[in-house]
Amino acid sequence: MTINVGVFGAAGYAGQELIDLLSTHPEMTVKFAVSDRQSGESVNGNGLNYIAQADVDWTSADLVFLCTPHGVSAPLAAHALDAGAKVVDLSADLRLKTTDAFQQWYQQEHPVPALLPTQYGLPEINRHFLSNVDIISNPGCYPTATLLALAPLAKGGALKPGAPIVVDAKSGVTGAGVTPKPGTHFVEVYGDLKPYNIGRAHRHIGEMEQELKAMNPDAGTIIFTPHLLPVDRGILNTVYIPVTDGWTPAQIRDLFEASYSAEPLVDVLPDGQTARLKDAVRTNKGVISLHFPTPDVVLVVSVIDNLRKGASSQAIQNANILFELPETMGVL
Amino acid sequence: MTINVGVFGAAGYAGQELIDLLSTHPEMTVKFAVSDRQSGESVNGNGLNYIAQADVDWTSADLVFLCTPHGVSAPLAAHALDAGAKVVDLSADLRLKTTDAFQQWYQQEHPVPALLPTQYGLPEINRHFLSNVDIISNPGCYPTATLLALAPLAKGGALKPGAPIVVDAKSGVTGAGVTPKPGTHFVEVYGDLKPYNIGRAHRHIGEMEQELKAMNPDAGTIIFTPHLLPVDRGILNTVYIPVTDGWTPAQIRDLFEASYSAEPLVDVLPDGQTARLKDAVRTNKGVISLHFPTPDVVLVVSVIDNLRKGASSQAIQNANILFELPETMGVL
Amino acid sequence: MTINVGVFGAAGYAGQELIDLLSTHPEMTVKFAVSDRQSGESVNGNGLNYIAQADVDWTSADLVFLCTPHGVSAPLAAHALDAGAKVVDLSADLRLKTTDAFQQWYQQEHPVPALLPTQYGLPEINRHFLSNVDIISNPGCYPTATLLALAPLAKGGALKPGAPIVVDAKSGVTGAGVTPKPGTHFVEVYGDLKPYNIGRAHRHIGEMEQELKAMNPDAGTIIFTPHLLPVDRGILNTVYIPVTDGWTPAQIRDLFEASYSAEPLVDVLPDGQTARLKDAVRTNKGVISLHFPTPDVVLVVSVIDNLRKGASSQAIQNANILFELPETMGVL
Amino acid sequence: MTINVGVFGAAGYAGQELIDLLSTHPEMTVKFAVSDRQSGESVNGNGLNYIAQADVDWTSADLVFLCTPHGVSAPLAAHALDAGAKVVDLSADLRLKTTDAFQQWYQQEHPVPALLPTQYGLPEINRHFLSNVDIISNPGCYPTATLLALAPLAKGGALKPGAPIVVDAKSGVTGAGVTPKPGTHFVEVYGDLKPYNIGRAHRHIGEMEQELKAMNPDAGTIIFTPHLLPVDRGILNTVYIPVTDGWTPAQIRDLFEASYSAEPLVDVLPDGQTARLKDAVRTNKGVISLHFPTPDVVLVVSVIDNLRKGASSQAIQNANILFELPETMGVL
Repeated sequence: MTINVGVFGAAGYAGQELIDLLSTHPEMTVKFAVSDRQSGESVNGNGLNYIAQADVDWTSADLVFLCTPHGVSAPLAAHALDAGAKVVDLSADLRLKTTDAFQQWYQQEHPVPALLPTQYGLPEINRHFLSNVDIISNPGCYPTATLLALAPLAKGGALKPGAPIVVDAKSGVTGAGVTPKPGTHFVEVYGDLKPYNIGRAHRHIGEMEQELKAMNPDAGTIIFTPHLLPVDRGILNTVYIPVTDGWTPAQIRDLFEASYSAEPLVDVLPDGQTARLKDAVRTNKGVISLHFPTPDVVLVVSVIDNLRKGASSQAIQNANILFELPETMGVL
Repeated sequence: MTINVGVFGAAGYAGQELIDLLSTHPEMTVKFAVSDRQSGESVNGNGLNYIAQADVDWTSADLVFLCTPHGVSAPLAAHALDAGAKVVDLSADLRLKTTDAFQQWYQQEHPVPALLPTQYGLPEINRHFLSNVDIISNPGCYPTATLLALAPLAKGGALKPGAPIVVDAKSGVTGAGVTPKPGTHFVEVYGDLKPYNIGRAHRHIGEMEQELKAMNPDAGTIIFTPHLLPVDRGILNTVYIPVTDGWTPAQIRDLFEASYSAEPLVDVLPDGQTARLKDAVRTNKGVISLHFPTPDVVLVVSVIDNLRKGASSQAIQNANILFELPETMGVL
Repeated sequence: MTINVGVFGAAGYAGQELIDLLSTHPEMTVKFAVSDRQSGESVNGNGLNYIAQADVDWTSADLVFLCTPHGVSAPLAAHALDAGAKVVDLSADLRLKTTDAFQQWYQQEHPVPALLPTQYGLPEINRHFLSNVDIISNPGCYPTATLLALAPLAKGGALKPGAPIVVDAKSGVTGAGVTPKPGTHFVEVYGDLKPYNIGRAHRHIGEMEQELKAMNPDAGTIIFTPHLLPVDRGILNTVYIPVTDGWTPAQIRDLFEASYSAEPLVDVLPDGQTARLKDAVRTNKGVISLHFPTPDVVLVVSVIDNLRKGASSQAIQNANILFELPETMGVL
Repeated sequence: MTINVGVFGAAGYAGQELIDLLSTHPEMTVKFAVSDRQSGESVNGNGLNYIAQADVDWTSADLVFLCTPHGVSAPLAAHALDAGAKVVDLSADLRLKTTDAFQQWYQQEHPVPALLPTQYGLPEINRHFLSNVDIISNPGCYPTATLLALAPLAKGGALKPGAPIVVDAKSGVTGAGVTPKPGTHFVEVYGDLKPYNIGRAHRHIGEMEQELKAMNPDAGTIIFTPHLLPVDRGILNTVYIPVTDGWTPAQIRDLFEASYSAEPLVDVLPDGQTARLKDAVRTNKGVISLHFPTPDVVLVVSVIDNLRKGASSQAIQNANILFELPETMGVL
């Protein structure tokens, strides 16, 4: 089997990373890479040139990855499905289950309501929902790091009902996209650390809480503070989680081992070790460490590469699932 | 009046910064700068050479700054006081009020118990305790940023009794000192973000909780996670503070305005602005922004330069107090 | 005397730095700061707000600094002179002596030929030409670092006639300006070193060679390779200079001492020391070290802060000259 | 065939990188990794633990890589050869052909003179000398980047006889090794650019000139200025090369094409493109761009990853040659 692949939004950071990873995938071959802005230019390290969207031959792809912005992706997804391709959408268009939720967090009407709900593909948490579908919505980068930290506690019943969960998140600058902006100018970022969209303002909260409450309806509110780090890539979330009385550190650790000990792409560090950004940068893994500051609070450090497990390599996991290939093919 | 100043530990980052700042102080003149390791070398941007401790003429200083490590400072402080000098100690030796607390957090016996308790000099919070003393203990860098964030709430009675307070802290590498270590090798730090001493392990917790409870005995435990940032200087603390029912954002803001509107060295940013590391780096100020993610939690971002307000410039504030000079002389 | 100052292009990096420096100048007060793009916003650390150019009261300034782009500056200079103000132009408009040279290097017609030639103000080299003028053209950043390295050799007759001089230059990103561009995106610059405009392509060559040949008409061609460094500020030029036979290192050093030993803003490091970027960053100085790899080649490392000695602080030196103030007032 | 490999100095930056690369080599398997300092600790991303040198079973390796310091490597090389293994030595011990040259540049007696001369393995330049040997000396990082820039001109007869060649070199901090030193402290390097060992002082000059003169005995002196860059990895050399009269840019380009167009691990960029550090970082390639500032000087920008083509991946090329495997196996 060779799966012919088309990539939209291919000149963005996630798109470039995806094409890099796909170059060694045994069963997938990139047939076209779409970028209106850079059409005609060569795709780095690949024999292809970017093409304009108008020039896409929709019948040439068995699989389409959408690295396009929200609002743009969903119509492309519909078009691709109509043409008979399967789809992994890396945008936010299909992550929220309802048009209302999309309207609330993205302040615009959903472009293709008929696509909702789409399955949300964070395989280590919910791969059992991902069979027999033609389209998967790929999680956001912050939600991936957050949900990996919370899932064992949420599923295991350890979360203190209703208690707010603090997610103090730090991300490298590729997370802000490839388009030059004042906030991503080298001089602005260099030597700085900048919190933004503090508290309840970031759009990823909707997605995080939706998936958290799907695992545990009593879960509390997420207080989310992203910070822009002066590095190019990587996300480190420091997550403070109130737990119900009586859970011991050993029991908490058991929940994480039960969730992840068989997962090749999630590492739970042993006692005494602390996850750091570099543990995950340029890997396809999530790396987690567990800490127990007080009897009532579990502190989880959760690290991913925002362009890999937070975008492109997770998209390949999901694509493998769509085609019933081994889930880690090309990413392990 | 010219105050003759001696600086011990003068070749460390805080010592160098202090000497730089003192070069423009109208009433203070550095007479000697002590560094056994670099004795004989010239002090950067200053006519002096470092001298060895053995060569100090103790009668030549009216004022001594101790930028020496804990364990080393207290005996020097005793010596200086005996010689008739006033002292600002930037080490941890005199920050905790009891020998037991020192033993608990520093795992060694206190070197000079007779010096305890020493007044703790964070002027914007407790300058009323600092008159008629000859020695002041200068706060740690993390505690300065943390206490500036907490004091208005603690004094104003807004803290939820017993509720844990999350302090997610990020510091530049000068905070780790001038001595080369594997953990401060450029290659290790570059591109990384590294949490360390997570939860309840960092020695500064003792100092933070001591001062917090002095303001509000019912204050909860501090959960403290420092992270090593890949920048040279600056501390940004993101502080999550449970408050009692009924406090509105406007009332919380009033508490901060009441505390700091007359303070030239603490800026509280207006609504809609977020403090960032660069707001404080290479300044002598603390900069604070207020955020209200949920009705029950106040989120404060508190930023300082770890070498200035977190060490040297605050030491000059305290020295000015010791000599009844205007508190901001030389630092505003 | 209080000199009322207006700054155009005040929101760029050089303009901001200039306003910062002027805040402590004993005789100058900024009356207005012009930025069409940011008009109405507050000038950082200053009571003023930026104003639009259309709102300038030209009669309110005794002195105008132009931090505007080339092409824009010259007409403003003419206008300011007509209104009775003196002018320091930090752009390239008035650095070249002829319209032909301007056309050659900037590929456009000179906007105000009547202003040519204007005196070129690199005070340590040619302050004797700067009396009795109302307008001074402030040197470029690369030319300042280069000419400080070459002047003693050129004036002293040590340059090998006609032999090409290699200037391998490295600059921080503020040199590329405040406007976001793909080439200044954090992600692009981070971890990179990027040569650009290699060999004979950079516009600053015209200015460097003009001033070099004014000192020594037999001087050779400059081969100039600028590199974009992943830091915010500073220029380090490594300059390889063929010298005529018979010059000893001691004699070469004498030339530099003769030129600079009385200069408070140029430091020549002693034998065995090497200038590094940090020696000049956030200072108003040029710092130079001398090296003698072979009997025929002198190697000079020349360092400045591109925003200070390479722009704003040198502009203040020139402004002091225009008003017959001590040249280092406000910058030493 | 499976080749059993031992790595000495395995915990240094080059050793770690080598082990990473070998993990995907189809014919080589790392049997032991030696580090006295870290013996017992796990080798990152590998099932092995570091072992102490005293515990090495010398009969277990068909091939030994020496990432040990100069002075230490040569005795290990002799021991390994005696035990029947082939050797690639990444240290400087065997790069210079004579004990006198070693004494001159390393200021110590050669530890095993009987091993001299050893073949110097920069395959793209001299692979024809590398057959039928059991040991190869792997080039230094700076010499690799320099010689790739010079070889086509030296072999093609274009170098101006006796004219000095300027090599302005910039290297990331991994080049300084893993041991913490004041000069590699994050705070010292951050925001700085630091020339060192200027002119004729760096030990790599002996090696560069030896190999250059082997290609062209009339080649001039190399003036070499390394700079420490504030990045983790990569070397960019800007090389200024006087050429004899009459060589056109097209002819020069032909020399480079003739040398490298068939080389999979050296890219010569087309006209109008400039090599930058990122072109080579985390690749096994050398990347070169050609520039023609004046008719007499060719300017070559030559970029490598110091840990890959400048150390580990080139070592694998050499090891493949020793075992008559395809030269790019495991590195392309």
